[in-house]
Parts: sequence; C-alpha cells; structure tokens
Amino acid sequence: MRLSRYFLPTLKDNPAEAQIASHRLMLRAGLIRQEAAGIYAWLPLGLRVLERIARIVREELDRAGAIELLMPTLQLADLWRESGRYDAYGPEMLRIRDRHERELLYGPTNEEMVTEIVRAGVSSWRELPRNLYQVQWKFRDEQRPRFGVMRGREFLMKDGYSFDLDEAGARRSYQRMFVAYLRTFARLGVKAIPMRAETGPIGGDLSHEFIVLADTGESDVYCDRAVLDLAVPGVEVDYDGDLEALIRAWTSPYAATSDVHDAARYEAEVPEARRLHTRGIEVGQIFYFGTKYSQPMRAQVTMPDGSARLLHGGSYGIGVSRLVGAIIEACHDDAGIAWPDAVAPYAVGLLDLRPGDAATGAACAGLYARLQRAGVGVLFDDTAARAGEKFARMDLIGLPWQLSVGPRGLAQGTVELKRRASDARIELDVDAAIARIAGIPSNGDIP
Amino acid sequence: MRLSRYFLPTLKDNPAEAQIASHRLMLRAGLIRQEAAGIYAWLPLGLRVLERIARIVREELDRAGAIELLMPTLQLADLWRESGRYDAYGPEMLRIRDRHERELLYGPTNEEMVTEIVRAGVSSWRELPRNLYQVQWKFRDEQRPRFGVMRGREFLMKDGYSFDLDEAGARRSYQRMFVAYLRTFARLGVKAIPMRAETGPIGGDLSHEFIVLADTGESDVYCDRAVLDLAVPGVEVDYDGDLEALIRAWTSPYAATSDVHDAARYEAEVPEARRLHTRGIEVGQIFYFGTKYSQPMRAQVTMPDGSARLLHGGSYGIGVSRLVGAIIEACHDDAGIAWPDAVAPYAVGLLDLRPGDAATGAACAGLYARLQRAGVGVLFDDTAARAGEKFARMDLIGLPWQLSVGPRGLAQGTVELKRRASDARIELDVDAAIARIAGIPSNGDIP
Repeated sequence: MRLSRYFLPTLKDNPAEAQIASHRLMLRAGLIRQEAAGIYAWLPLGLRVLERIARIVREELDRAGAIELLMPTLQLADLWRESGRYDAYGPEMLRIRDRHERELLYGPTNEEMVTEIVRAGVSSWRELPRNLYQVQWKFRDEQRPRFGVMRGREFLMKDGYSFDLDEAGARRSYQRMFVAYLRTFARLGVKAIPMRAETGPIGGDLSHEFIVLADTGESDVYCDRAVLDLAVPGVEVDYDGDLEALIRAWTSPYAATSDVHDAARYEAEVPEARRLHTRGIEVGQIFYFGTKYSQPMRAQVTMPDGSARLLHGGSYGIGVSRLVGAIIEACHDDAGIAWPDAVAPYAVGLLDLRPGDAATGAACAGLYARLQRAGVGVLFDDTAARAGEKFARMDLIGLPWQLSVGPRGLAQGTVELKRRASDARIELDVDAAIARIAGIPSNGDIP
Repeated sequence: MRLSRYFLPTLKDNPAEAQIASHRLMLRAGLIRQEAAGIYAWLPLGLRVLERIARIVREELDRAGAIELLMPTLQLADLWRESGRYDAYGPEMLRIRDRHERELLYGPTNEEMVTEIVRAGVSSWRELPRNLYQVQWKFRDEQRPRFGVMRGREFLMKDGYSFDLDEAGARRSYQRMFVAYLRTFARLGVKAIPMRAETGPIGGDLSHEFIVLADTGESDVYCDRAVLDLAVPGVEVDYDGDLEALIRAWTSPYAATSDVHDAARYEAEVPEARRLHTRGIEVGQIFYFGTKYSQPMRAQVTMPDGSARLLHGGSYGIGVSRLVGAIIEACHDDAGIAWPDAVAPYAVGLLDLRPGDAATGAACAGLYARLQRAGVGVLFDDTAARAGEKFARMDLIGLPWQLSVGPRGLAQGTVELKRRASDARIELDVDAAIARIAGIPSNGDIP
C-alpha cells in the first residue's frame, strides 16, 4: 500500500482523554476513532490488526475441532426469559424496542441463542459433541467506558460453546479449549496465564481467565512464577487424545484472580521467592456450566436407549478487540507501538528518504514490487514528508521492519533495515534485505 | 470437513413461511436459522458462502483503490442531526436509548459517520481522492420483513464512500465503482445489469442499481436486451485510466427501474424485439450526491491557494447477505441449490456410499486427504446414512462437484464424479478425479 493513497490519520499530540498507553497509541497511530463513549470506528490500519488477530483465533479453534457460525447482533428478549437471565442481567444489557414494540436486546453474549440453535438442529446422541463459535460484535452498556478498546461498549468477541452428553465429555471439551487458548495467545505474541476465576453471570462451577500481566490491567492476580516458564503446546498437539497431563501441568502452579484468591493455600504452596501479586488484562475466559442453560431451555438429545439427555455445556470467550489494546500494552516504547510479527498490519514500512529523487524513487518502486511479489505486506511511505517525520511516523505505527532508502546508501548499493522492537539496524544490499524480511515465519509457528 | 463432526441441520420439509425458492432452500439446506422476524443466524455452511462473497467483493474493491475500514453498528443520533436525516429517516431506523438516556441508532447506512471520519482525518487537497468502504451489519426496521435474507432487518452490507475535490473527480470515482461492480458480480457468477435508478433517501442526482433479473425480484425493470450481451471488463482494467468509453458502452442501451422509467424514450430507442420488461433483485446501488453531506457537516480541505473546498461525495452499496439469496434464485433446481464455483461453501462433496465397508472407507479417507492437500474444500459425508439420503442431501446443499465412492466402482478402480449444475456424470480413476476437481479456476478469473 502506498501511503500517498492510504488513509492513516495519525495525531501529533497525546489525546487528553487517554489514560493508558494503548489507548493513547491507538488514537495517535490512526488505528481507531471514537464515535461515542466506548464505541469506536476501526480505521484501516487498526482493522488490519483486528483481522490478523481474528484469523489466528479462527485457525487455532478450527484446529481444535470447533466450527464457526455467525449469530445476529440483536436477539429477542423472550429468548433470555427462557433462561431467566433477561431480568437478572442488569443495566449493562442494551434493551431495544422495535417499531412493533417487540423487545429486543443487543447481545452481550450468546449462551441462549446458541442453545436454541443446537436444540433445533441436534436430536440424537450421535450428533454430539459439537463446539460452535463465532466472531461477532457485542454490546455491554458499561456504566463508565474507559481505556479505549479495553473497556469499550461495542466490542468484538470470539464466543464459543460446547455441547456434550455428560460432564466427562464437557470437561474434555473444556480442556480442548484450554489448550487452544494457550496456543492462540502464544501465536499472538503475548504471554497469557490461565488463572482460576469467578464464573460471574455466565454461571457454572469451573472457570479460568487468561490474563496478560500488565501494570495497567484491571485484574488483580496472584500466581506462582513457575507458571511463567511453562512450554506452550506445539502444533502437533492431538485434540482427540488425552490432554489431562498437559492441563495438570498448567493448572498445578498456583494462579488465581483476587475474586477466588485463597491466601492460605497461596502461602502454603508457593515459596516466597516465587510469589507474584500483580495486575493483568483479561483477554479470554472459559466456563464449564453443565446443564445451566439446557435445563430451562429443554435442550436435549435422544440416547441409544431412547431416553432424553440434557446437554452439558461450556462457553469460551476471547476479547478480540481488547487484545489489540493488550498487545500494545505489552509491546510499545516511548516512540510508539512495536507489533509482534504475527499481528502486524504490514510486515515492513518502506521509506523513501529523498522524495522527488529519481534514484531513490526507482529503488523504492522496485523494492515495493518485489516485496509484494514475495507476499510481504508493505506500507510504502512515498509521501513528500521529511525523513525525520517519516521515521517518527513509522516508529509510532510500529511495523516490525523499517526499510529506508536514501541517496547516500544507494550510491554504495545499500539500504538500511531496522528492526522496530530492538532498534537493531543493518546496512545491506537490496537482495539481502528482501531475503531477510521475506524469511519471517508467517503463521502456524509460535515465535 | 467430515460431516460426522459438522453442524448441518438440514430440513426434510419445506418451511411453511418461505414463499420463494431461495428462502426455502436456505432454511432447508441448513444455511440460516430465523431468530426473530427478519433476523437470522448464519449456520456454518451459510457463513462460508457469505464469507466467500465478501472476499470477492473486497478483492475487487481493493483492486479499484478503495480502502477498508470498519465502523461500529451503533451511531449517535446527534451525528444524524448534523445532516438533517435523523428526523427524516422514518420508522425504518431503529432508535435506541442507552442507560444514560443518550440517543443512539443502529446504522442503516453510514454517510454521516464516514464524513465525520474524513472531516477529522483529512485536511489538505493532497490527501484526496479517497474511497473508504466497510463490510458491516446494518439494521433497517422493515414494516414487513420477508423473503428470508432478501428483505431482512439485520443484514450484511458493503458500503463504500468516495471523497473528491470536485464533481469531475467524483464522477471518476463513481465510474471506478461502476466498473468494480461489474467485475464483482460477474465473478460471483451472476449477471447484474446496471440500471438508472432513483436516489431515494441517500440523495443526489445520479444513481444506478445493479439488478439480477429474476421473476421473484421486487424491482420492476425495463431494458434493452443488448445490455445482456455486453462483455464485463477483465482483470487488466486500468482504474487510473479513462473509463469513459467503457461506461458509455454500458449505459447507452436503455436500462431503468420503473421509478425512473421513461416510456417514450424506451419505445423510441429500443426496437420492439429487444424490449425486456421484467423483474429483478437489486444487489447493489451506487450514488453521486456531491456536497449533500459535506455541506451541512462542514467537511472540507484546504486548496493550494489556501481556500476551503467542500468534499464531493458518492456512496456505493452491495447487499452481501442479500446476494446469497439472489445467487440461489439464479442457481437452483427442484433438487436444491447449485452454487457457482466462486461462492460454493466447499468445492466438492465426497460420499462414502457403503459406510462401514473397509475398502470404500479407506478410499474415501485417501481422497479426502489428497483433496485437502491440493487446497480443495471438501465436505466428506462419512455418516452412516443410506446412499439415497446422501445423494439427496448433497443435491440440496449444492456443492459444485460430487465424488461418490461405492464398492462396485472401486472394484474396477473407479469413482463417480458428478457436476451438480449440469448433472453430468463420469466414471474415472481417483487420480483423474482429483486432477479434474483441483483444476477449477479458484479466483480472479471470471468464469
């Protein structure tokens, strides 16, 4: 993409309303624009990050056997009356009346609707287990939206739901998602720790939150530092196999949110040097809730002996839009964002340092074409801006590589390649630069 | 995907509420499920079609220089008061109050919001032209939702917006979208005719609807049959070049919706044998509206001489979810859907005709793995259902190819390959079958 034809409205000054780095940087780098309290438009560069995150989420869920569908944003209030949650949900639910005075709501989560879909579509034990997920916009009418996309009102969430014949099956489904989440977050370039957590309005008796440690996080957490060094399961993990040992390794070290924190156990189990009491950002949560929804909604299948069996369920969320903020909290410096390769909107920023110069212009055009042919995402700053302004903008938007073409280097046949995160710079010839950038592992592997 | 692990709730009987083929078939083939009047969940197979359509729409818009962003579904009422449309829009606008009694609405279209975004992000004539689009859910509170996704309330739309310095530039932007739409619909496998149309609530003085001819369509149209034979521009079309001649060729033959039909001109210009008065489905509409939004909203840039210039705009819609229905109206028979290759949810259905048989099972497993490795989307019916039931289900869901593996053919080293649309069948060996299926042009080319 040529910047001269792109839409990248960066801001020079720090927006006064932004209290944390990710909010500030998302506004300044032209990723989002606020359209109402807690409601954002995703500008082109931000949308690319959101889509890259969503793609990795989908790949890992598909690998684990989950199936994607898409439910509407609006739901009938009557559906939530079936489960009893309509009156219980409180003011965070955005309630709507249509022109015929029918009661609708903007879905904050979808346990009821997916249970209705499965109730209608599945009748025999043979058709289970199933795990259905969607990536869809949700709305929670927060009393005080803040921190940009971290606590917005309209937000993009991956929500998944498993349906099994019994508790043992449902716990295996829960384990599959546990493992898929470990892989997903690792591929996204963040360290998310699974922690025992409250079940809240979803209900049930088993839940883990996946939390990225960050001083600006809203979660108060306690854990054993041993959990920070555990190895994430590789791509060879067998979701049809026994995941017990893997889950045990990840759930044995103490890790809990303050809501369920057990100080006595923490102090007994965790040596003082390994105790970590800090803050974090919740980027995912998984729940086992048994028949909480299937019972009131009569979602059941016929067993081999002709009897009816209520479905055992769990649900699994990932905050896709929140992850953009969480990743920035973990990956930035004073100059701006430093995207992990896996979610970067473009892999490389190409800078023409002497716009109008025939030699640098031709060299840049050649590099731009070759990188694109190699399948590398390039944002080419072909504008008339001064070199200093171009460098600052590239540092702000945080593409992993910067490739600068100036007249002096070009006279010696070289360009400068800079790694944004480390600030490491190297002068090299054009072929070597392309080989270096195109060699980035693009997907599947955990960096 | 193995059907034994998929979620494909097909229906045996025709749903009573469905009056047209596409609605009936979408419900029966397990593509959608109604969750409220005019509000549908997209089941896994339907979502795949929706995504394939959206991908082609995006590819052709990107090719034409448009840039994707994503605006929120909810908007502030005050934004629509700036343009004067809030009070004018009528009961189709879903109006909402949040917990703080602020007035919101579920966006039915986005001229105001995108104008606000460009007003904030663009200040100089150097930053124009720009064309921004999104693929996002919209809501129109139809008095009487009907025909399934053809006239739903929550629907997926691609809406794009161009911004230029003057009318001449805006008309070139309009022409680019005109050409991109011709290519998009042709790639989707439907013949969509551009017709002069009313501008309606979007406003402006120039508009074309893109209409797929179909007896069940809601649009009443008049055209010269000559327009049916025009060649769609190829992938080599130069969007930076002069598109006048191309546009003239497509707009010279008479083609108009009944709203703007000029009977005298029609009869004078179109020989009787070429007159076509029929019905059609509107799948896209484009508008030029000049400064209708930029003027009240003060969206302007600074010109080289320091003066302020209002932006000249146009907007461009494609009904992505409606297209699923429109394509089915054009591509079905008594047995079910017959998807065009470009939008088919899977390219091939693989049928094990003797489930439980070791030889057919092994042959199918081998074919399944080889097709997947070749990058071909396969839905493998590995269930215990009888052959007749499997054939009927595959005909209903309409994958372009069916590959059947039975014990008799297998004894002679052959499988049966059937082309769904033509019902042409051929017995061939496994290697030949794979080569035949994998040879389908997958994208970019217009079939």
